[in-house]
Amino acid sequence: MAEAFQPFSRVALIGIGLIGSSLAHNMKAHGLAQHIAITTRRAETLKRAEALDLGDSYHLEAADAVAGADLVILCVPVGSVGAVTKEIAASLAPGAIVSDVGSVKASVVKAMQPHLPENVHFVPAHPIAGTEQSGPDAGFLELFERRWCILTPVEGSDETAVERLKAFWTACGSDVEVMSAEHHDLVLAIVSHVPHLIAYNIVGTAADLEKVTESEVVKFSASGFRDFTRIAASDPTMWRDVFLNNREAVLEMLGRFSEDLASLQRAIRWGDGDSLFELFSRTRKIRREIIEAGQDTASPDFGRGPKHEVKQEG
Amino acid sequence: MAEAFQPFSRVALIGIGLIGSSLAHNMKAHGLAQHIAITTRRAETLKRAEALDLGDSYHLEAADAVAGADLVILCVPVGSVGAVTKEIAASLAPGAIVSDVGSVKASVVKAMQPHLPENVHFVPAHPIAGTEQSGPDAGFLELFERRWCILTPVEGSDETAVERLKAFWTACGSDVEVMSAEHHDLVLAIVSHVPHLIAYNIVGTAADLEKVTESEVVKFSASGFRDFTRIAASDPTMWRDVFLNNREAVLEMLGRFSEDLASLQRAIRWGDGDSLFELFSRTRKIRREIIEAGQDTASPDFGRGPKHEVKQEG
Repeated sequence: MAEAFQPFSRVALIGIGLIGSSLAHNMKAHGLAQHIAITTRRAETLKRAEALDLGDSYHLEAADAVAGADLVILCVPVGSVGAVTKEIAASLAPGAIVSDVGSVKASVVKAMQPHLPENVHFVPAHPIAGTEQSGPDAGFLELFERRWCILTPVEGSDETAVERLKAFWTACGSDVEVMSAEHHDLVLAIVSHVPHLIAYNIVGTAADLEKVTESEVVKFSASGFRDFTRIAASDPTMWRDVFLNNREAVLEMLGRFSEDLASLQRAIRWGDGDSLFELFSRTRKIRREIIEAGQDTASPDFGRGPKHEVKQEG
Repeated sequence: MAEAFQPFSRVALIGIGLIGSSLAHNMKAHGLAQHIAITTRRAETLKRAEALDLGDSYHLEAADAVAGADLVILCVPVGSVGAVTKEIAASLAPGAIVSDVGSVKASVVKAMQPHLPENVHFVPAHPIAGTEQSGPDAGFLELFERRWCILTPVEGSDETAVERLKAFWTACGSDVEVMSAEHHDLVLAIVSHVPHLIAYNIVGTAADLEKVTESEVVKFSASGFRDFTRIAASDPTMWRDVFLNNREAVLEMLGRFSEDLASLQRAIRWGDGDSLFELFSRTRKIRREIIEAGQDTASPDFGRGPKHEVKQEG
């Protein structure tokens, strides 16, 4: 894919965590940028990025990194994008594409857009890819491979800029989708934000029990709980910002979740096995669709990971 | 381990799903039984077990399988153990060990014990191992490897019988733990039953939305939701029975979960980032403990499975 791609002359990565460093690996491997300028607030992290040879120049001031860049990508927690944009606004080159990688979009647009000069192209983006790891060491080349990247252009976004960014993410291995920021936030609330909140919540509940000790929870975690702890080990700062910045959509989806859970609770209390069975059969079907859509494999995973190939769907 | 094990002369497996067939593989591989008698209600399933060469004799009548057996293991859904026990009671050999593999224990004891003759040894068991697959084809040798098996002997259980069953499960690769049926049910409610219920619930909620289509949910599932669908693809009959039979403990844990979730919901509504951050940091610690306890690896898994080794903990 990268062959056809006309490289950017200078890409500024603001923030060099999991996403930023994975982007750096991609740009180097696929020749997507003639120069990669890396900036991050913490000197220690910047040093680490340099030690890992992730870029071509390293800057403690974001404004220095974006000067002369034709692509600027904010890879910082969603809660910081407003302040960062304000900081770099005056140094942005005319015609530059300004983008981000935040997990929420409407609030990012609201926070960034007022600070941006008229002569740059603002195209917000969200690569749906991640691990529970963070920091410049966490990045790897294949992070975006066959993962969706959603672009949410604002009203009046330049078509050429959108196409250019699309090609960039495609070169990183992503499948690109375009939708409105508002719709993005609703979709992500149900497929990502609420699942994370629930995972965080149950791990917290388990830790606070008196009748079951924490060491018992840890010991017997393989029976389902373990999968939740992996999700609940995700970066606390990033996720705090996600919830604060996608409040409306999360609260809406959470309301429905709680309503449905109350009805399941009632079914258990009253011994209504048919309702339980009906739901449990319906959810199995969705799992099959996900496997068919190539978003996961059918390999069983409970217990110990990927060692055992599945023989048939049960 | 199996070298030191004195094989049973005849083991009757009642039910030949994932657990039953995995036990058959283990008994054959490690020489734990001189004769494996398999019984299941559905002729088709029994035929399949025979085609897979899982046992030495095959019976449509459970009573025929248990005749002369010195170990009888019920591998049927928890809701059926009472009826099955009633059916086999008269055919049980004096001195036989009678056990099961159910995910709940107090209700199993309550359902089975009244039917059992005085001269057999009743030792309920729960191997905490499984995949979301079911049926005789789903079984494999390593299912119990390094997984916990919890024995919940009843009052007056014969020590020798408990030790013998412990050795049997150890030979299958399990780590064995002994506790009361009641405590088992509380522990499992929080580490397994409530997580499953929540996973079923959110997959159901997602399927019922109007503003986000099911195909969007499937498409973008890799962002967290996907892990829930795997859990929510577990066997509907087994799980219906689990919830109906561990009602009290599940409702207790669910009550706490909902209380905690309401408080998180409030934190989001009022923009209380500190409370969110505090919880999200605390849950990370539990994840580390699970990795240290060898119940999971630190490999990142979001996105595409086990291909990428982690370089460091974030």
